[in-house]
Amino acid sequence: MRTIDWVDGAVEIIDQTVLPEEVRILRLHTVPALIAAIQSLAVRGAPALGVAGAFGVALAARVHADDPAALDAAVSRIETARPTAVNLARGVRRAAELLPEGPEAVLAEACRVRDEELAASAAMAKRGADLMAELCGERPRLLTHCNTGGLATVELGTALSVVREMHERGALAGVIASETRPLLQGARLTAWELGRWGIEHRVAVDSAGPFLMARGEVDAVILGADRICADGDVINKIGTYSHALGARRAGLPFVVVAPESTVDLGTPSGDVVEIEDRGSAEVTPWSEAANPAFDVTPHDLVTAIVTDRRVIRLDRGERP
Amino acid sequence: MRTIDWVDGAVEIIDQTVLPEEVRILRLHTVPALIAAIQSLAVRGAPALGVAGAFGVALAARVHADDPAALDAAVSRIETARPTAVNLARGVRRAAELLPEGPEAVLAEACRVRDEELAASAAMAKRGADLMAELCGERPRLLTHCNTGGLATVELGTALSVVREMHERGALAGVIASETRPLLQGARLTAWELGRWGIEHRVAVDSAGPFLMARGEVDAVILGADRICADGDVINKIGTYSHALGARRAGLPFVVVAPESTVDLGTPSGDVVEIEDRGSAEVTPWSEAANPAFDVTPHDLVTAIVTDRRVIRLDRGERP
Repeated sequence: MRTIDWVDGAVEIIDQTVLPEEVRILRLHTVPALIAAIQSLAVRGAPALGVAGAFGVALAARVHADDPAALDAAVSRIETARPTAVNLARGVRRAAELLPEGPEAVLAEACRVRDEELAASAAMAKRGADLMAELCGERPRLLTHCNTGGLATVELGTALSVVREMHERGALAGVIASETRPLLQGARLTAWELGRWGIEHRVAVDSAGPFLMARGEVDAVILGADRICADGDVINKIGTYSHALGARRAGLPFVVVAPESTVDLGTPSGDVVEIEDRGSAEVTPWSEAANPAFDVTPHDLVTAIVTDRRVIRLDRGERP
Repeated sequence: MRTIDWVDGAVEIIDQTVLPEEVRILRLHTVPALIAAIQSLAVRGAPALGVAGAFGVALAARVHADDPAALDAAVSRIETARPTAVNLARGVRRAAELLPEGPEAVLAEACRVRDEELAASAAMAKRGADLMAELCGERPRLLTHCNTGGLATVELGTALSVVREMHERGALAGVIASETRPLLQGARLTAWELGRWGIEHRVAVDSAGPFLMARGEVDAVILGADRICADGDVINKIGTYSHALGARRAGLPFVVVAPESTVDLGTPSGDVVEIEDRGSAEVTPWSEAANPAFDVTPHDLVTAIVTDRRVIRLDRGERP
């Protein structure tokens, strides 16, 4: 089952806002519908957003084939639908480069973006599982944050594809999935995927992560990234940084798994990244809220970054 | 308005499970009703639990005046209704010592427990506000966790009484209240109290605390404690420890405010404290959960502890 795909002239996605209670497929025929799906997090996860961006340009190329100005505007709206994830803009730009060659060329490029993400997941799974065996020894208990499974990519995942590979190798004792407020991607999506894969797991509130590490219930932290800066700073779902602080204090490996497309050498460090604030309503109906959707984990707290092409050992001074 | 009091032969509490949508007063005439209110967190907060425990013994003394065995059993059930908070057991034992002198003597002692908590709040407010001026300078922006206001005590609060005092002195720029999953005491109760007091505030998800500190949006952390160990380790609502890690990394003061009754010299350190796990259902309807209700903040992460009698500067090597 694919999280996002091109099916019979439209983009099909699994609507992640209604999981785990319902597995609903949305067919998106228009650019506004696609943008709404991106902004409501019906489709989310850095790699999946890259594919969504590319398919979005394919949609725009068909709808606005005879109106270059409308086409440009539509492409621009998709590219900026969410400001923090580098993959969305990158997927859009890759597909948009083919616009001069017509809608079919754009669609072909978007399908290549999709296929590369599929291959990247498989590569990260193997490389990541090898690294975890080296860092953690036999059958570690892992903590993960947000959702980095098939739902965040196209099929397998980033960090969660490593977890699944470790499970298939018999090299995993269990997983704590932090719930990931405010939208509960961990409690809703990661727990659902782990359950489908038969992996033993428990959910915990986000702020329990550092304490469970201190109490010796976790052997390593593994999670994804929305953007990796040139110095190795990691931009990821809010809560990542506090898990990194907990892992450092407990002396645990802190491993980030993300496709090479997440590495953004044009961003020197996390300090300069615009962090999306998603507004009060997601957090509480009763008052104003600060709602940064992402945080910055400084590179000195990260043990290693695993991509589909390499392992970057930040703990040994390596940089992206 | 008092959170808990003895009114016309029964214990009256504000039901904290329905705030902020409704201000509902519960009248508790029986020991089982009181225990149910404690376990559902209708009444909560270390100081308020001490008062609830003492009033509970007063209830038991009236109901079981002619049955010493039933009376003993009832007192024991109240004492152990929640395992982590030291105040509950302490309030129970103080009132229970008067049992040989009859129900009226027990009630009088319970009222003394209540009155001492009222006085303690006022003392903490002044002492804490003086310390914050020393540590943070003018008009700091504070982050607090869980609820330590009047709802956690009888009238004013512990950490939040300091916040209120700073506001009244014109020495406060604003407050971030972390929502405090799983039961949202921050988003429900603290935000409601801050609003009533006219204090500028925003709510944030718990895991955003350390990042907001790193981004320079917080000048100090101030919160309460359920138990303070002999070495200065602080047992408090889950999430406290991750805020302490964030404060340390950002170089911010981390101040704990709690009545002297919270200091438990019989507990050498946080390592030996039983941490209540409140079960999966509070966290998620979809899977198993680890749900520690409290965590341990090691004393080396705490700048100072303010009680109604003293300031303990852990950062200068002082110990409770």
